[in-house]
Amino acid sequence: MTTWKIGDREEIENLVSQEMINLFAQISGDNQPLHTNPAYAATTKFGGVIAHGCLTAAFISAVLGTRLPGPGTVFLKFELEFKLPVRPGDKITAVAEIIELGEKGRMTLRTFAHNQDGNVVAEGRSYVIAPR
Amino acid sequence: MTTWKIGDREEIENLVSQEMINLFAQISGDNQPLHTNPAYAATTKFGGVIAHGCLTAAFISAVLGTRLPGPGTVFLKFELEFKLPVRPGDKITAVAEIIELGEKGRMTLRTFAHNQDGNVVAEGRSYVIAPR
Repeated sequence: MTTWKIGDREEIENLVSQEMINLFAQISGDNQPLHTNPAYAATTKFGGVIAHGCLTAAFISAVLGTRLPGPGTVFLKFELEFKLPVRPGDKITAVAEIIELGEKGRMTLRTFAHNQDGNVVAEGRSYVIAPR
Repeated sequence: MTTWKIGDREEIENLVSQEMINLFAQISGDNQPLHTNPAYAATTKFGGVIAHGCLTAAFISAVLGTRLPGPGTVFLKFELEFKLPVRPGDKITAVAEIIELGEKGRMTLRTFAHNQDGNVVAEGRSYVIAPR
């Protein structure tokens, strides 16, 4: 049985591409031109395409589901604040760190993501039941 | 300028497929066999493949970004509790309903999703700035 402790941390880096954003638009149904049309997006205040916020959420979720606490994790609750836009070409590192351990495998993690400049793009908490 | 009021509500129905889940695994990096390998998933307590929780989050996000409050929405914060598994073949209806209106376009929505049996699979709150 795996033993976890407060402060345990895992991360995964992801390179965001326009193709990835297009696929995310197709799956989610959120096909706003701000995500999928570079020419249109260039005319907005963002100055170019930005990724769906939930793409960053998906990167974080992948850390929880594959690394910490890993395969078999049951997701109970997810909270995420969006801080900065994510663009094609950004390297987004999703991070999970245990901040609280409860009974029967319950744990709370600080989950966040930063870009290649070290700026936090999204930050929150995840509540899970760890696999036995 | 669009005027919103408390109780305004929009929803979008999505048919979940194994292909959709496979693409989500590819994009997010969460390629656990519970999501992508039906033979393995059948041996688990779930009895078959379940979708990533963040797929439901993406469906909800699509309602916010395309319907209510719609294109141009700035996402501030997202909270979601996961209640029931989602499986290939499920029809998942994502719903957003305004529960609080603030200054400068800020609003809080109750955001949730239910399956074809009317059971809530995920539920939470979304905090956004509506487009002007």
